[in-house]
Amino acid sequence: MKNFADRLIEIIGKKNTPVCVGLDPSASGGESIPQKITQSAYKRFGKGLRGTAEAIYQFNLSIIDITSPYIGIVKPQIAFYEACGYWGIKAYIDTIKYAHKKGLIVIGDIKRGDVPHTAEAYAEAHLGGPYATDAVTVNPYLGEDSIAPFIKMAEKFGKGVFVLVKTTNPSSSDFQDLLVGHPPQADNVPLHRYVAEKVNQWGKPLIGKSRYSSIGAVLSADAARHLRTIMPKSFFLIPGFGAQGATAKDVKHCFNPDGYGAIISASRSIIYAWTTSPWKEKYGPKKWEQAVEAAIIEMKKAIGWQEKNTPPSPSF
Amino acid sequence: MKNFADRLIEIIGKKNTPVCVGLDPSASGGESIPQKITQSAYKRFGKGLRGTAEAIYQFNLSIIDITSPYIGIVKPQIAFYEACGYWGIKAYIDTIKYAHKKGLIVIGDIKRGDVPHTAEAYAEAHLGGPYATDAVTVNPYLGEDSIAPFIKMAEKFGKGVFVLVKTTNPSSSDFQDLLVGHPPQADNVPLHRYVAEKVNQWGKPLIGKSRYSSIGAVLSADAARHLRTIMPKSFFLIPGFGAQGATAKDVKHCFNPDGYGAIISASRSIIYAWTTSPWKEKYGPKKWEQAVEAAIIEMKKAIGWQEKNTPPSPSF
Repeated sequence: MKNFADRLIEIIGKKNTPVCVGLDPSASGGESIPQKITQSAYKRFGKGLRGTAEAIYQFNLSIIDITSPYIGIVKPQIAFYEACGYWGIKAYIDTIKYAHKKGLIVIGDIKRGDVPHTAEAYAEAHLGGPYATDAVTVNPYLGEDSIAPFIKMAEKFGKGVFVLVKTTNPSSSDFQDLLVGHPPQADNVPLHRYVAEKVNQWGKPLIGKSRYSSIGAVLSADAARHLRTIMPKSFFLIPGFGAQGATAKDVKHCFNPDGYGAIISASRSIIYAWTTSPWKEKYGPKKWEQAVEAAIIEMKKAIGWQEKNTPPSPSF
Repeated sequence: MKNFADRLIEIIGKKNTPVCVGLDPSASGGESIPQKITQSAYKRFGKGLRGTAEAIYQFNLSIIDITSPYIGIVKPQIAFYEACGYWGIKAYIDTIKYAHKKGLIVIGDIKRGDVPHTAEAYAEAHLGGPYATDAVTVNPYLGEDSIAPFIKMAEKFGKGVFVLVKTTNPSSSDFQDLLVGHPPQADNVPLHRYVAEKVNQWGKPLIGKSRYSSIGAVLSADAARHLRTIMPKSFFLIPGFGAQGATAKDVKHCFNPDGYGAIISASRSIIYAWTTSPWKEKYGPKKWEQAVEAAIIEMKKAIGWQEKNTPPSPSF
């Protein structure tokens, strides 16, 4: 199987953008799936979990249809599917299948982390088995043997792993910024920097022809500033463009001089574009598809990748 | 709703044991579900995910029937269900329902951890919604705002949260044992001890009549030795009795002088008792139910809770 980083480089070059669309459809709460979709789903399957999962799936099909001409990577957040019980998990799996049919790379945002015996079950299911995503996000708290089963699957099947290094939430500083060191003495290095060093080390055996590794890192745009030197070969998965606050200016430095090395992901600011300015006023709920299309075009332009690069810079 | 810690105390007193059975049915690999069950399930639903999930479910029903006269708490590890796609998630939900019907407390071993918006979806689904477990395990790497939605649900619905503090896997030392401190200076305290302090703090508003908190900690028997003083009111969830190496002698000190404050969980050593000595020789696959029963009786006796306590010591 082709190396995951090589596949990333290929699709980024093909679509001329490192933008990723987060498929985080929360059917409840303030932001929501367009009524036309939910009503049709409820009519067929009721207002319970099955109807909600169907609405999520139908919404995803539209989002993928609208955005896939522009971008090459999607990232479903499994929590919003899991919230609908097994019907939700079915929607998650069917969404992955449809994205693959459209030629997209799918990153499962699962943030799993468990003891080795259990991590194996997760790794086999998500990178192989019933989910078969191209890459997953994982939590490093349990250490190397909890990540190893994912890396093993990545190596075997040309898949990728993004390790949480420095997350975008305010409380990420609680533990990730603590100064750490090896016993018996602390070295005054923030924990997330120490994790970043491990990610770089874990990724070395999985470097592809593109000179990038299949083991990447999830981090905030801000943290990327001081972590590139530690993880020169890693793809950075930068979530929350728009809704979680990062702007085009904030993410410029996430890329290597060759223009690669980062994936910029936006979820709510794209999929719910019609609920926020300026798209809300311009399109509104009736023309929600046009709002999504306008938002992805604008984001792609804002990231400015196409102007910066003459695409196939790596050695293959 | 009644406080979760009070409910725990009640069931431990009623069943006269702090033993918990881990429902970790891995249908593949060396250890396995008795052939009689898998063959019947495969016959009805095929050898794919649906048949495997059915085997897991039927196996769980038997395990619950055999063990529930002796113990009051079960802990399904969601990874092994998730591995069977949505059929597996259905088996997970149906298992929880059956355990509830039998009056058991169910701890969902999900180890989730995500940014607040997403953590809310997980918390609502697992402590309310379609899963409705009595408690869940969570990963602290993302900090307080990632745990808060679970604590909020615990408070609202009388549920519990067990935060990973020091896990039982060998690599738990990679990050959990690093010496940490607040910037600009490190204090030479292991990270897991620092997390334990947070757990104690987070748990204070959820202390019940029993004087224990609904916010507990997942830790190894070994780590419990030096963490009780930091978390005097927390229930310790000690996994891996038997298979992961902890013995009755190792767990004695996990309890407070009142005999409460710890849950000792065993998975493989109970549910696959018939595959290991001495039960393998004595019972074997044909009498696997008797092996499970003998194993749970022996474990309960080994933990020795009943000899040590005159049960209702707390103030209610």
